[in-house]
Amino acid sequence: MTQSLPSAGVLGARAFAALQGLNRFTDEPGKLTRLYLSPAHRQAAEWTKGAMEVAGLSAFIDAAGSVQGRREGSAPGAPCVLIASHIDTVKDGGRFDGNLGVVAGILAAQALRDAGIVLPFALEVVAFGDEENVRFPTHLSTSAALAGDYDPAWLDARDTEGTRLGDALTAFGGNPAGIPALARKPGSIKAYLEVHIEQGPVLEVENEPVGIVTTITAQSRARIRVTGEAGHAGTVPMRLRKDALAASAEMALALEAIASGHEQAVGTVGVFDVDPGATNVVPGAVEFTVDFRSPSNETLDAMEAAIRARFGEIAERRGVGLTITPYAKAAAVPMEPGLQDALSIGVARTGANLTARRIPSGAGHDAMSMAAICPTAMLFVRNEKGISHSPLENMTEADAGIAIRVLLEAILELARRET
Amino acid sequence: MTQSLPSAGVLGARAFAALQGLNRFTDEPGKLTRLYLSPAHRQAAEWTKGAMEVAGLSAFIDAAGSVQGRREGSAPGAPCVLIASHIDTVKDGGRFDGNLGVVAGILAAQALRDAGIVLPFALEVVAFGDEENVRFPTHLSTSAALAGDYDPAWLDARDTEGTRLGDALTAFGGNPAGIPALARKPGSIKAYLEVHIEQGPVLEVENEPVGIVTTITAQSRARIRVTGEAGHAGTVPMRLRKDALAASAEMALALEAIASGHEQAVGTVGVFDVDPGATNVVPGAVEFTVDFRSPSNETLDAMEAAIRARFGEIAERRGVGLTITPYAKAAAVPMEPGLQDALSIGVARTGANLTARRIPSGAGHDAMSMAAICPTAMLFVRNEKGISHSPLENMTEADAGIAIRVLLEAILELARRET
Repeated sequence: MTQSLPSAGVLGARAFAALQGLNRFTDEPGKLTRLYLSPAHRQAAEWTKGAMEVAGLSAFIDAAGSVQGRREGSAPGAPCVLIASHIDTVKDGGRFDGNLGVVAGILAAQALRDAGIVLPFALEVVAFGDEENVRFPTHLSTSAALAGDYDPAWLDARDTEGTRLGDALTAFGGNPAGIPALARKPGSIKAYLEVHIEQGPVLEVENEPVGIVTTITAQSRARIRVTGEAGHAGTVPMRLRKDALAASAEMALALEAIASGHEQAVGTVGVFDVDPGATNVVPGAVEFTVDFRSPSNETLDAMEAAIRARFGEIAERRGVGLTITPYAKAAAVPMEPGLQDALSIGVARTGANLTARRIPSGAGHDAMSMAAICPTAMLFVRNEKGISHSPLENMTEADAGIAIRVLLEAILELARRET
Repeated sequence: MTQSLPSAGVLGARAFAALQGLNRFTDEPGKLTRLYLSPAHRQAAEWTKGAMEVAGLSAFIDAAGSVQGRREGSAPGAPCVLIASHIDTVKDGGRFDGNLGVVAGILAAQALRDAGIVLPFALEVVAFGDEENVRFPTHLSTSAALAGDYDPAWLDARDTEGTRLGDALTAFGGNPAGIPALARKPGSIKAYLEVHIEQGPVLEVENEPVGIVTTITAQSRARIRVTGEAGHAGTVPMRLRKDALAASAEMALALEAIASGHEQAVGTVGVFDVDPGATNVVPGAVEFTVDFRSPSNETLDAMEAAIRARFGEIAERRGVGLTITPYAKAAAVPMEPGLQDALSIGVARTGANLTARRIPSGAGHDAMSMAAICPTAMLFVRNEKGISHSPLENMTEADAGIAIRVLLEAILELARRET
């Protein structure tokens, strides 16, 4: 049955050609910037709708601005396998983040149609629009709409220019009042699959074209304030100092050590603001952020306890004040084991030399929304240098083709399971 | 002979009353801000000239804006003992920094005159005007003028409003062309003594009202740039990171350890700028400053070598780039041993319970300029909480009185050495 499907090489070439078409649409000429509900988003949605229709899907732009396409299977109205990702980008972003997953879904649907394959389920492709959390202080709102988890308060969120999300949605051609009806019925989605470029360097380092996501990691963030005593850099002896920067530096290294001590965990100090921040003044206060993640909720809790203990010990020994203010915490979202296995089988059928590498996702995805209502899995594609959210983001055409071929094989595996 | 000199208690009361008078003059109402050549500086100079005259000194405002007062000793035209400090302040500064030393000189001269003591040398008091390096990018220019080390290029320095120093000096009533003539002849100053509030907490911690400065410490500054690789805080595994912040934190702690390993040395990271500085991004680059000081030039060189070695080792181990750009280095300025001893004798004669505590100065002073042309020493006065360059700077009236009494006794000791 798979003999008539296009090769990975052909799929890769088609994907790059399609991305070139889709990525013409940008809010900033010379860069790829496509913010939720912007003019470029609207153009990209129209392009996506057209591409879906050419691929044999019935398509429309939904009330929240997502593009939805569907082709019925052997029994009209049956539950679907849904392939999706997003077509919004960060400012000056990369060509593949989100876009590749949407193109992969469309090309898979097209290949199946061209091969005359009738599936025992419907096939849907969706292009979400609010994944990157850039324009509005919302996150994954368009996939939340499908999951029946849309918070109406999001409509009152405003961008930096003061535009209300609800108004922007109406101007875009969406329909705030129609959002509740987007919620999918329980059981109506058999499986959710998302192809996405890896946003880190793991597959590159391990020389694997694709990886199967095991879980979207648990994550916690906190603001840390360390208060010491400002002093003259020349006149306060070392033994009498309460140097907020030295204490904070020790805490940053403690976080690094804690994260390094747990398999697949990470920990990052990204913001580090020094008061007063003058060459000849011993810093009196430092505010920094910690962001730590693990595929395991238990490990995340253990890390948090270790951070509190170690930071507290450092603060006490150095005689500085310490305030830890957690402000965001999310539990791990495990991917469905059966769907991971379907992707593994897809990998094996795509190439004997390929390994079904399992890898956690340290970044959030629309799959998080969908996992609440249906079996969900993700396939990562090797990122050439591990660079994300940058015009330097890159992948090879060959890897893109392998990923789409794996997706096709996984869909066929799911079909096989029906019979 | 000293029976007729006022007690420390009387001198302290007089000093606080005088400071109240002098510190009315500020460029910012509600704060004490008196920048070089500002209107408040001019008013303070006039007040100082008047106070000198009342104390029996012939006084004038010199070509560079300093106030100079002199009373001849037994032989007119003889070399002088010069007591000085500065009457400029930082923005929103303390009441004692500089001002106390000028008032101490005036009150000492007054006490000696009132007691009918004729010295075997002239006594001079000078109120310098450009110590704080705030308004113009010059430092110690007015004392450099007396030391014959005034760089004419300083006249072209400009403040943040674009005003040329030379023009500001003319508007103030000074005379740029007259500066070279301010240079004192070799041998014309027998001794330079400066009373100054300690700008750190050492005397406070050791419960000593005064301290005798051993040396103005050697000092070196450098800008450090650490370049790693920016990455997504969730997706780059710890083992694959080149985290510029973690590397810089380790370097900051290395500097702290190096400084703590040398007696009386200090080391400070005061500026620490993170790029890009976002919660969810592994920092790609950090720029920070190091400032390190020691009373010993040899120790400073050893510290610099240790910093280069340790920072280099950290950078190599972590695979990050490292650039060290030194931008300021000053050798130690030792105080003259015989004058330190005269102050020690002064301390002993002031109170049997006082210790002649020796202490290095980690901050710069006009004494640095003067040490190039004459024997120089400084007396530090206990700072209530070790806070400098702040309205919270404080000392007790009792300590101020003790310091002026010590100064008087030291002057008398120098007189004794002449006979």
